[in-house]
Amino acid sequence: MVKALLFDVFGTVVDWRTSLAQDLSAWGAERLPGADWVGLVDAWRGAYAPSMDEVRQGVLPWMNLDALHRRSLDRIAPDFGVTGLSDAEMDHVNRGWHRLRPWPDSVPGLQALRRHYILSPLSNGNVALLVDMARAAGLPWDVILCAEVFGRYKPDAEVYLGACRLLSLDPAEVMLCAAHNSDLAAAQRLGLGTAFISRPTEYGPHQSRDFGPEGDWDIVAADIEALATCLLF
Amino acid sequence: MVKALLFDVFGTVVDWRTSLAQDLSAWGAERLPGADWVGLVDAWRGAYAPSMDEVRQGVLPWMNLDALHRRSLDRIAPDFGVTGLSDAEMDHVNRGWHRLRPWPDSVPGLQALRRHYILSPLSNGNVALLVDMARAAGLPWDVILCAEVFGRYKPDAEVYLGACRLLSLDPAEVMLCAAHNSDLAAAQRLGLGTAFISRPTEYGPHQSRDFGPEGDWDIVAADIEALATCLLF
Repeated sequence: MVKALLFDVFGTVVDWRTSLAQDLSAWGAERLPGADWVGLVDAWRGAYAPSMDEVRQGVLPWMNLDALHRRSLDRIAPDFGVTGLSDAEMDHVNRGWHRLRPWPDSVPGLQALRRHYILSPLSNGNVALLVDMARAAGLPWDVILCAEVFGRYKPDAEVYLGACRLLSLDPAEVMLCAAHNSDLAAAQRLGLGTAFISRPTEYGPHQSRDFGPEGDWDIVAADIEALATCLLF
Repeated sequence: MVKALLFDVFGTVVDWRTSLAQDLSAWGAERLPGADWVGLVDAWRGAYAPSMDEVRQGVLPWMNLDALHRRSLDRIAPDFGVTGLSDAEMDHVNRGWHRLRPWPDSVPGLQALRRHYILSPLSNGNVALLVDMARAAGLPWDVILCAEVFGRYKPDAEVYLGACRLLSLDPAEVMLCAAHNSDLAAAQRLGLGTAFISRPTEYGPHQSRDFGPEGDWDIVAADIEALATCLLF
């Protein structure tokens, strides 16, 4: 019955915390030897949900995630010793989100699933970010569906329903695969199938939730290869 | 300077006339031995531009190409001996546009280009149609951009500019590749690069235009492999 699988991306498909910290630490080692890149990454991610709330509440006009990320970065960077960079260098830092690396199971799991299912991200990331990430990481998406296409951020209903509409599928023919219970809850309320992917180290030592399934999800899988095993056999 | 290549699809990437006629003739051989499938295909394509004009002029509300195709099909089918089919069978016929096959140079040309450029369709086809086609034909798109995403049909400016916006690129960083001079003219007026791909047999014996370049296009190529040679060397 399910024909398309939609994947949350940050945390579910890519390990944003480890890869962004490593990417920026390596890049900044000589430029800014005193910078606290791990602290920056954690604070940056902490600003993510509040920044989307500002768009949702109309405090900010629509802006895509690259723009929200840059806005947050400019505000928090000095707190972590990231100062004195040119605009082009700050843009390079901001585009670290385009260079995130997948969890080890993501690419083989997606490759297996793609033989039988249409695959798309359903991310709050913007199109260019997701395209760059897919090209660098080898994520075999059939199409890129995301918040920017609909001008709304998850968990707004328009994102999930807009994806179903563009795929010409009923919600029951579409399954959201995500490491976050709140994302799955929003999808389930709208009639989509749900698969919980366990990512208990997404936030490193700061992980405070989503250690396991907290809803009646259709599938619970240890990772994306396990999801493929579950769906294909 | 160009970072992304957008491809017109019907005629430029896929040989809609030959593959649709063959697909439907084979499928209908026993069901409807007297049907004129080639005639149907030509008349169907003939209804394409007028049907989009009805949307553009507000005579019809927005509807995607699957819906426009079905509307045209229902009207013209009896003229070609295509009668008595169930709704599911008519849907199968309509989805023939999802099963179109590429010109022989399309897949190798796109594969070569993808190593250096972001690739997307920029088609009046809808997302589900283009996803199904890409999966069946092996078209290596990075993203699926098309009329349905923007709620407008080419050559409306919103389609070309919307694609640039979602790619986070300036028009000058994007090139439209198409077999139709009118499509290239619309793109060029908006500042996109242009590549003419020669497809002189697209309409079979009924071809009446687009035998060659009729504008000052940046590139003129015999096919997509030739385009790759031109852009990559």
